Amino acid sequence: MKHEIAADEGSAASPTAKQATGRRTRSDGRRSREKILLAAAQLATVEGIDGLSIGRLADHIGMSKSGLFAHFGSKQELQLAAIDTAERIFTDDVLAPAMAESDGLPRLEALCDRFLSHVGRRVFPGGCFFASIAAELDTRPGPVRDRVTDIARAWMALLANAAGEGQRLGQLDPELDPEQLAFELDALLALGNSLFLLDGAQALERARRGISDRLDRART
Amino acid sequence: MKHEIAADEGSAASPTAKQATGRRTRSDGRRSREKILLAAAQLATVEGIDGLSIGRLADHIGMSKSGLFAHFGSKQELQLAAIDTAERIFTDDVLAPAMAESDGLPRLEALCDRFLSHVGRRVFPGGCFFASIAAELDTRPGPVRDRVTDIARAWMALLANAAGEGQRLGQLDPELDPEQLAFELDALLALGNSLFLLDGAQALERARRGISDRLDRART
Repeated sequence: MKHEIAADEGSAASPTAKQATGRRTRSDGRRSREKILLAAAQLATVEGIDGLSIGRLADHIGMSKSGLFAHFGSKQELQLAAIDTAERIFTDDVLAPAMAESDGLPRLEALCDRFLSHVGRRVFPGGCFFASIAAELDTRPGPVRDRVTDIARAWMALLANAAGEGQRLGQLDPELDPEQLAFELDALLALGNSLFLLDGAQALERARRGISDRLDRART
Repeated sequence: MKHEIAADEGSAASPTAKQATGRRTRSDGRRSREKILLAAAQLATVEGIDGLSIGRLADHIGMSKSGLFAHFGSKQELQLAAIDTAERIFTDDVLAPAMAESDGLPRLEALCDRFLSHVGRRVFPGGCFFASIAAELDTRPGPVRDRVTDIARAWMALLANAAGEGQRLGQLDPELDPEQLAFELDALLALGNSLFLLDGAQALERARRGISDRLDRART
């Protein structure tokens, strides 16, 4: 993971330079807030968002605690900032390409397809950032959980809206309940994501089959 | 429960007192161990299995750390024992009633139905014990994860076996892939479980509708 982060540092383009920057260095100042937050978001999918303390992150990226405190005043501020970063990555990687598709069914298919591709490319090592965090936080109230819950609800609403739009455009059965369809699709995506970490690509393939079959039945 | 467990242990603060308690009350000790493990399994669905240390559990149930060490030598031993307890509860509450149903489709329906009922009755406060623990452990290798993975695989195999039996008995479409059907049903169960903690009973209702619809299509 240190190598991936280093690879994002545009000026250090050669493999040798990347490896060198991956080592612990004293040049804390060179690391931008964004790079720290990318590492934080990735770490959170492996060790949990609750384990994302300033001390633990400092160890992980080889930076001093005082250097991190210059960026984030508290553990909760760091957690919320890491969630913002994960949301931005998810938007660029999953939502934006799907929103560029035509309204309705093509967008609904693209949302599902991009999600599974996002998981399969291991953009976050622990799979979908929000699924990973939500499972950890579901019984722990607070602003961090509220933020993740809002994002999960927005995702489900996006699926339901695309399904509703597909109905209005005559692509999907006008009798179906778009929120129920969104629930069923999200169920397949979520299990594909969580079993991918245990079983690899076969889980994503099962999710794809289930989704394709479910959407076939939903078509007019 | 707090008082009962504390009463079983007395104030066993010193090693000598701990050993004396251990000799004096072997059958009390067994009952007390079961109560401790039930509390431990329930706590794990709220705070995570990794947070299930002897110190944290001692705080939670109002018992001394040394008293708990008399039952469990290490954190990992406690975690594995809590998983055994959760498995026994799940077997009694979900598996046994489903196994009492007729082979094939009735058993498959009962497995799904009992699972959702188990979640809805909040037998564990954080929903399905194994889903809660699996989400936390999926990126942390070790004997605790292996144990939970085995249980999750056995559950999926049980669903697939009931589906296969339903095919042999002419209840379900002979063309379908029983493992794919098991995946799709488990996806609905898992999302019903995880959203139940956020949205309440509506999530279980969505899971039931999805399962009923999926099984209708699977019938011959």
